[in-house]
Amino acid sequence: MLAEDIGQGDVTTAAIIPQDATVLAAVIAKDAGIVAGIEEAQILAESLGLKVRSTVTDGERIKNNQVLMQITGDAQTILTVERTMINLLSRMSGIATTTYKMMELLRKAKSKAKIAATRKSVPGMLYFDKKAVMLGGGDEHRLHLDDMVLIKDNHIAIVGSARDAVELAKEKVSFTKKIEVEITRPSDVVKVAEAGADIIMLDNFSPEEVDDAVKQLKDAGLHKNILLEISGGIDSDTLLDYALAKVNIISMGELTHSVKSLDISLEIIRN
Amino acid sequence: MLAEDIGQGDVTTAAIIPQDATVLAAVIAKDAGIVAGIEEAQILAESLGLKVRSTVTDGERIKNNQVLMQITGDAQTILTVERTMINLLSRMSGIATTTYKMMELLRKAKSKAKIAATRKSVPGMLYFDKKAVMLGGGDEHRLHLDDMVLIKDNHIAIVGSARDAVELAKEKVSFTKKIEVEITRPSDVVKVAEAGADIIMLDNFSPEEVDDAVKQLKDAGLHKNILLEISGGIDSDTLLDYALAKVNIISMGELTHSVKSLDISLEIIRN
Amino acid sequence: MLAEDIGQGDVTTAAIIPQDATVLAAVIAKDAGIVAGIEEAQILAESLGLKVRSTVTDGERIKNNQVLMQITGDAQTILTVERTMINLLSRMSGIATTTYKMMELLRKAKSKAKIAATRKSVPGMLYFDKKAVMLGGGDEHRLHLDDMVLIKDNHIAIVGSARDAVELAKEKVSFTKKIEVEITRPSDVVKVAEAGADIIMLDNFSPEEVDDAVKQLKDAGLHKNILLEISGGIDSDTLLDYALAKVNIISMGELTHSVKSLDISLEIIRN
Amino acid sequence: MLAEDIGQGDVTTAAIIPQDATVLAAVIAKDAGIVAGIEEAQILAESLGLKVRSTVTDGERIKNNQVLMQITGDAQTILTVERTMINLLSRMSGIATTTYKMMELLRKAKSKAKIAATRKSVPGMLYFDKKAVMLGGGDEHRLHLDDMVLIKDNHIAIVGSARDAVELAKEKVSFTKKIEVEITRPSDVVKVAEAGADIIMLDNFSPEEVDDAVKQLKDAGLHKNILLEISGGIDSDTLLDYALAKVNIISMGELTHSVKSLDISLEIIRN
Amino acid sequence: MLAEDIGQGDVTTAAIIPQDATVLAAVIAKDAGIVAGIEEAQILAESLGLKVRSTVTDGERIKNNQVLMQITGDAQTILTVERTMINLLSRMSGIATTTYKMMELLRKAKSKAKIAATRKSVPGMLYFDKKAVMLGGGDEHRLHLDDMVLIKDNHIAIVGSARDAVELAKEKVSFTKKIEVEITRPSDVVKVAEAGADIIMLDNFSPEEVDDAVKQLKDAGLHKNILLEISGGIDSDTLLDYALAKVNIISMGELTHSVKSLDISLEIIRN
Amino acid sequence: MLAEDIGQGDVTTAAIIPQDATVLAAVIAKDAGIVAGIEEAQILAESLGLKVRSTVTDGERIKNNQVLMQITGDAQTILTVERTMINLLSRMSGIATTTYKMMELLRKAKSKAKIAATRKSVPGMLYFDKKAVMLGGGDEHRLHLDDMVLIKDNHIAIVGSARDAVELAKEKVSFTKKIEVEITRPSDVVKVAEAGADIIMLDNFSPEEVDDAVKQLKDAGLHKNILLEISGGIDSDTLLDYALAKVNIISMGELTHSVKSLDISLEIIRN
Repeated sequence: MLAEDIGQGDVTTAAIIPQDATVLAAVIAKDAGIVAGIEEAQILAESLGLKVRSTVTDGERIKNNQVLMQITGDAQTILTVERTMINLLSRMSGIATTTYKMMELLRKAKSKAKIAATRKSVPGMLYFDKKAVMLGGGDEHRLHLDDMVLIKDNHIAIVGSARDAVELAKEKVSFTKKIEVEITRPSDVVKVAEAGADIIMLDNFSPEEVDDAVKQLKDAGLHKNILLEISGGIDSDTLLDYALAKVNIISMGELTHSVKSLDISLEIIRN
Repeated sequence: MLAEDIGQGDVTTAAIIPQDATVLAAVIAKDAGIVAGIEEAQILAESLGLKVRSTVTDGERIKNNQVLMQITGDAQTILTVERTMINLLSRMSGIATTTYKMMELLRKAKSKAKIAATRKSVPGMLYFDKKAVMLGGGDEHRLHLDDMVLIKDNHIAIVGSARDAVELAKEKVSFTKKIEVEITRPSDVVKVAEAGADIIMLDNFSPEEVDDAVKQLKDAGLHKNILLEISGGIDSDTLLDYALAKVNIISMGELTHSVKSLDISLEIIRN
Repeated sequence: MLAEDIGQGDVTTAAIIPQDATVLAAVIAKDAGIVAGIEEAQILAESLGLKVRSTVTDGERIKNNQVLMQITGDAQTILTVERTMINLLSRMSGIATTTYKMMELLRKAKSKAKIAATRKSVPGMLYFDKKAVMLGGGDEHRLHLDDMVLIKDNHIAIVGSARDAVELAKEKVSFTKKIEVEITRPSDVVKVAEAGADIIMLDNFSPEEVDDAVKQLKDAGLHKNILLEISGGIDSDTLLDYALAKVNIISMGELTHSVKSLDISLEIIRN
Repeated sequence: MLAEDIGQGDVTTAAIIPQDATVLAAVIAKDAGIVAGIEEAQILAESLGLKVRSTVTDGERIKNNQVLMQITGDAQTILTVERTMINLLSRMSGIATTTYKMMELLRKAKSKAKIAATRKSVPGMLYFDKKAVMLGGGDEHRLHLDDMVLIKDNHIAIVGSARDAVELAKEKVSFTKKIEVEITRPSDVVKVAEAGADIIMLDNFSPEEVDDAVKQLKDAGLHKNILLEISGGIDSDTLLDYALAKVNIISMGELTHSVKSLDISLEIIRN
Repeated sequence: MLAEDIGQGDVTTAAIIPQDATVLAAVIAKDAGIVAGIEEAQILAESLGLKVRSTVTDGERIKNNQVLMQITGDAQTILTVERTMINLLSRMSGIATTTYKMMELLRKAKSKAKIAATRKSVPGMLYFDKKAVMLGGGDEHRLHLDDMVLIKDNHIAIVGSARDAVELAKEKVSFTKKIEVEITRPSDVVKVAEAGADIIMLDNFSPEEVDDAVKQLKDAGLHKNILLEISGGIDSDTLLDYALAKVNIISMGELTHSVKSLDISLEIIRN
Repeated sequence: MLAEDIGQGDVTTAAIIPQDATVLAAVIAKDAGIVAGIEEAQILAESLGLKVRSTVTDGERIKNNQVLMQITGDAQTILTVERTMINLLSRMSGIATTTYKMMELLRKAKSKAKIAATRKSVPGMLYFDKKAVMLGGGDEHRLHLDDMVLIKDNHIAIVGSARDAVELAKEKVSFTKKIEVEITRPSDVVKVAEAGADIIMLDNFSPEEVDDAVKQLKDAGLHKNILLEISGGIDSDTLLDYALAKVNIISMGELTHSVKSLDISLEIIRN
């Protein structure tokens, strides 16, 4: 990360900051929310020989103007690493904060569902984005394409039917992996459950269609051993419409593909 | 990028998609805007042996439901690369679209200023984010910390004064680099211009303060050879307040730190 | 791989083989078994510009003296890549052959259990070793430490009890992962099943203890939704003692930690 | 090595082991033999911040149940690194033990020959395998293809004759490298010695053919300045048939291509 | 760097130097000049666990037989790193020394021009070579092709005219970069200055042509805001012919493409 | 190499050269000598999609103004790769030319000795520098520290005596490596030959001392099986003083540590 940001060195800092200057800097929140990325920022700073005292823990609620970290050490190093560290903290905290707000909405609506991340993220940031979702109280879902089997519409378009796809996966994939399948109409839900899916994703279902799918599973006696996930265009506005359905997971792409950063900055406190 | 996303291979695709299946897929916009990332997406797909026909060019305006690329080739490969390619396209197009809208606002206000990116981006995406800003009609500003000298508040806090910092840089840095300095009050503008700054960044200035700084420079006969940049909390709401000031560049962090992705998807058209 | 083998270049080949010599070489089995690694060998050879015609498919039974691949191209390249390619083929085919023999023993004993690999492999070869097990008809089990939750004796030694460990994992880990727990005495089997384990590994159980565990699970009505794996010192001699127990997976470390290579060689057929 | 094994992190350990738990673990032999890999295991563990006290030295004889290392430190780290460390130790100790047994056979037969490794190893493990052979009392032979000139049957098949190949190498290769040539019949031995070979490898010779070759060299007055190596299908059963021949090196592929691991395990001693 | 030099380890040192031997070594100049590379050598040695006391500072004048560094630590490590460290020091000091001599010539001739490096360097050494020029009192010029715009003869051959090239660059490149253009005849100097060049390189101009170009610029009132650089076949013999022209920069390829190393060696002082 | 030179892209070329322009360029010698690096330059250019026709072969004599390569292809690519390619060609050809001149001096003096390179090179260039020496008719000597055993003064300073060092190496190092030892006085030559050295380096010997050492070896009947190398401050001026001594190798550091580049340039011939 640093390599990308720095190029052959920070020409400004090298030219005007004395080589042996030591300073105290503070990382300060400029907005309220849930903090995330403290662990990563601390590792980054310490790996460059800086001394760090974090005054908050990842996942904690923070207030505007709250000091998050105090960093002491070589002035050139602090100024060079500043932007990368703040960019990471701001993004991760932004994601954690939004996730937390969604979970709050669910809690108030007495829903037991969990918000989950998707893989609609930024190339290179998947690990950090998923961790931020978790710190905000959500579920990170799969991280890599080899974490579990997840059969989507494009797979089914090629294989023929959702049921065939599940059966094929059941036969070919190690017993250590769960199998999830995305369906687009309620009438498929019983078929794929019988074929052996562990998790069923209801893609772009209306709240009524979700209720219909749950009912069908219950009638077939298959509801207990299967997790239901809903997905597709759910955002803060529509979340509550789905909150009372008996689903286990609600996954939201906008958590990670359209992040609103939390405003955080680094300030030199004392030379 | 792919490595991060895939892990040890896409277990779903490997299990259920036949090894020799060839398909035609289309990349389709689900919203209107300015497209960016087509060149990168094409390189990514072609490097994996897929055939790609791009039907738009980076920087072009696109409509909802417009086909952006047609991809033919191995089904397993297309499904495996899908998410990374779409994530990149969505982010870059989102950035280009927002930049374009800001430039439109300026054009309508008859401003000659240019929107510029900052380094408030996502670690690893700087190059792509900056290119997207450029495709939207903005200026990419410096890419690395060694592209130019940019003296910011934290540097000045250590060196003592903006003027001293500029003089130090002038003496120490190669003649091939420009020197920019960030000032926080109008009274510094003449001093740093005299010290040899090529560009002056007016940080968190009100529109009135910007006018004041321009006037002082003109009075000192220094306005011609210096570029003025304004920065700090400028967003689409406040942009027009600054549009008529005689500044050259308006830099906006939210272009890249709080991206709203453009909705784009990949669909299997035909086996 | 090649880099490690070659150093700064194959000094022998460079010195005595003419730069423009083209040869035909054959990869030939010197023993019977199940072949594995053909896909990898072909990719390796083709990546160096050689033309390859594979006459067998991974997972196929091969006979002594059977030709596996025909390679045409630059003589220097073929001689330089020879050792790496043959080492990979010999190891993978050795593993596939042993796995196949174990599966044959099970099939003859009418067992429905599946042989599985462990992570007792050679650093750097895990992916190839696991694939070879699969080509021999076995299950690759987890590839990485993040593929699933697998709670072993050393984890339990720290947490306190197997049951607590399962409950902790259930709470902390994404719904996308299965949870397996290793137990060392039959009396734990019902507890961990109730706590939510998806798979239970019976470590170093005698055949009688395995039967006991199965019976307890059945009595508690928990046998259906749980997979049972046995592990620990099972080799070809003791395999059949376990074959009739109602377990789903039999994992064997010696498949990959003590590989007997299949003898395969490359011969220059014609200049 | 660790990267391959771990993926994105050990999900089990992260979930159920407290972040600040410190434990004492012991690495214990479960079989007798010659230990190898202690230095590598210690470097691996210490690089992760663990404290290690090794109670044996590489190359030393060890007994069943002997403690080889004591490791203190962060429980999560120990559990995460366990498998890689044990895999390396088991393989290297297995190789050293087998090499030692072969050398013992030679010593008892009063042979002065030395057992040597070949390059029939596992991709990525060559350095470790060769070092283990050395620790067992053998010779590591060349490590890379640029360590010396070794002219094999496939080279000769292209060049025409062993003699021509040696002369070509003599002319083209730096004076700093030795030249070894593999011959397949006794009648070539004098020719290649005269051409300037430093070492002659007798490939797949019967014990009688070896004696014949030695006699021819002696008759030609060339025996003193040349090293003789025998190779090809020699294993523990046939080793003694060759032991009394006046050869200098006996190289054995099975030392490294069909390793029998030494059983070693890591146990948590105390929280 | 070390990796390239060492291969799989220093076989000599490993064989004959005891593992626990500690020695004191001195890095000693065998010639007088300007020292450069001390910082890099120290980082290299310290990264390997050696203790280093540097008795000179980069850029300082040194005498024959002067001790530059004292190194204490593991004998094997010192002997293994010796050659790489000395190669780097010798080259960088050679470059700094030559640059210094050129600057001395200019100072004596009362010229205010600065010697600058070109990119005619050795692949991989650009950063170190440029730093050495700076330590000798020169200007490092651009480091990468993205540091500034530098329009050369080959660019102009394609675009058509120097003026068009400058205008194109002005329009397309970020405001943060300077624009330099190389011209080959005095008659172009005013045109490119008017087109917006920040720096003009007079390539292979005679001293009289340089004077002519300066005069034209002055007549056009453009001399003040433009830097002039001369380049092309200038060496120590011809330098003074140019010294009195009113140019700002004199760039010399031979500083880095035909380096004369300064003789420096490492000696073991005490076991 | 390219990465270092280019940074994030050649900003000049990207801005002013049209994306689809195709040109013909020629690589032209601006001096006479022995060409080296053509193979590397061709690989570099072809790896970027350029078409290359080399009109000379590495090691060939070239004249001033001779065309070495013709390159056709994308103008942006040619301009971007130009500097790296020319830097490599100029350096390698400079080294080959100097080596050739030294070999010519020896040939004229009827010496059978061979000029050899040392490891006094530039970090990262060792392989290329050594190859250039070979193309000029010299011997590349060892490339890495693991190519052979080379016992130098600093090793002996620690071990105690040259003889002990040779004996230690003989015992510890694989039979595949040659052993060379550096001695500083004639009286050691017989001792180290008896101890088993394959090559003896006479360091900083006067021509008379060299003759003395040769005589002592002959008297002891050891001259035939041992190679003699002289080294230390030998340059073109002193070379002939040593030429008639019966040594096999004369190694010269200045071949690679103080290279005089051969002047070579790239010119755009036609759009």
